[in-house]
Amino acid sequence: MTLLAPSRLLALFVLGAVLAPIGDHVHVATGTTSYFDAGPMIWDSPWWFPVLVGLGTAAIAETRVRLGSMRTGISPRWAVGGLAAVMATYALTGTLCGYPDTLGVVLIGGVGLIVWAVIGDLRGALCGLLAAVVGTGVEALLAATGVFEYATVTDSLLGVAPWLPALYFTFGVAVSVLAELLAEDGLRVEA
Amino acid sequence: MTLLAPSRLLALFVLGAVLAPIGDHVHVATGTTSYFDAGPMIWDSPWWFPVLVGLGTAAIAETRVRLGSMRTGISPRWAVGGLAAVMATYALTGTLCGYPDTLGVVLIGGVGLIVWAVIGDLRGALCGLLAAVVGTGVEALLAATGVFEYATVTDSLLGVAPWLPALYFTFGVAVSVLAELLAEDGLRVEA
Amino acid sequence: MTLLAPSRLLALFVLGAVLAPIGDHVHVATGTTSYFDAGPMIWDSPWWFPVLVGLGTAAIAETRVRLGSMRTGISPRWAVGGLAAVMATYALTGTLCGYPDTLGVVLIGGVGLIVWAVIGDLRGALCGLLAAVVGTGVEALLAATGVFEYATVTDSLLGVAPWLPALYFTFGVAVSVLAELLAEDGLRVEA
Repeated sequence: MTLLAPSRLLALFVLGAVLAPIGDHVHVATGTTSYFDAGPMIWDSPWWFPVLVGLGTAAIAETRVRLGSMRTGISPRWAVGGLAAVMATYALTGTLCGYPDTLGVVLIGGVGLIVWAVIGDLRGALCGLLAAVVGTGVEALLAATGVFEYATVTDSLLGVAPWLPALYFTFGVAVSVLAELLAEDGLRVEA
Repeated sequence: MTLLAPSRLLALFVLGAVLAPIGDHVHVATGTTSYFDAGPMIWDSPWWFPVLVGLGTAAIAETRVRLGSMRTGISPRWAVGGLAAVMATYALTGTLCGYPDTLGVVLIGGVGLIVWAVIGDLRGALCGLLAAVVGTGVEALLAATGVFEYATVTDSLLGVAPWLPALYFTFGVAVSVLAELLAEDGLRVEA
Repeated sequence: MTLLAPSRLLALFVLGAVLAPIGDHVHVATGTTSYFDAGPMIWDSPWWFPVLVGLGTAAIAETRVRLGSMRTGISPRWAVGGLAAVMATYALTGTLCGYPDTLGVVLIGGVGLIVWAVIGDLRGALCGLLAAVVGTGVEALLAATGVFEYATVTDSLLGVAPWLPALYFTFGVAVSVLAELLAEDGLRVEA
């Protein structure tokens, strides 16, 4: 049984699934990533990409709630700012092809730490790290199996971009704050 | 009769008129925009550009005050940070020629939402939307009448850059916060 | 006698000495700067560069403490966010070669003001200005004596990049906040 009510998990799934193709389009349009014969597409993404991101969004939020010690009195604007930061950073990564790896890692990693410092807590950082490991791992697996690829100039981390963990970290932190917000009055009665 | 004292409206006009040519220079120097035979110039801008931005700055501030429900206890540093964010974003837009439209819209739109999330309120968002519609509309009109143009690679929104509404939104939010600050002890006695 | 305990000054030295070569690598790898036969290297930096930045970090912190009026109750996350902002900005400056001087100055200057507006106080701004003057001065001297150079397209400020003072300003502000944090329970008994 989930701690977050099913309707809230569904909303989190939809949020992730709607935002994912926007960022993915930026990566495809800039040549940062390319898909190979990936089946039915939604904009520039294969149909399963928004599904995976949607599931990941709901899973991170449920994880954050299960970790407990949630802050109360968080303003909804923290979630707005956090998600806006994730999307702006997602777009920014589309400009990094051709720059040194260290530049991208320090820039996107720095932004991730700033977002955490402004809205995150320690459990949110844990969710961010989890998102970084799982997200990067799944993408590395998909790249290794030839489903898609990162441009050669930016595939130095197991076949994916070296700044990718930092982007997923920011995503995990922002979703954790959203989870704290949703949990405040949205936990299941059973919880 | 204006609600903000004339001396404050004049200061807002001067602020907008002084900052405008700096950002406009970045757009002209990067080839983002070009003017055609626009009469006497201030740096790279025709004389009427700082005048328009100055008038817009005062008009947004007066509008924010008329909308009421102003927050008290706002720190002047909010206005410093907000205006700095507008100028940094203005400069950043000068790097976007040649990148996909979606990249610019998500990046600059994300920054605008972050600025709102940190310093804005709902009436500030309304002023931001108003600035986005009027500012983009005026620029589209000026582009349509051949006064100036955006580079072909970045003119897909009615002849102007697709990220332009997001830049004006950020501007409107920052000026609204400045208006709240100025109004705290600067409303006309008649008001 | 220093006001900050020697162990804390040493930690500040190490922090600056560890972070410096990371940012410097970005500048060298992007061709923003080049060193000429500078002796033993640490990554892409001559050995004395991390030493200078480490000394500068400790000196700014000690200066901030001596200026007095330190805020209490500052969260450690302010220092995390401030240092992350410095490093992200450092990396961002590696993308500015080839863009107009004004773009870089307004973008990096704007970021510096934002960082100050969020975490700084007036004495922190003073430390930022001091860092800007001394840091830029030392680099200009090193450039003039042929130890290293900035790329021709970005050396218009006394032989160094025009955005350099703004980067040092941000650095000075962030270190000042760290100093306030360390001083809260780390002043020497003699103080």
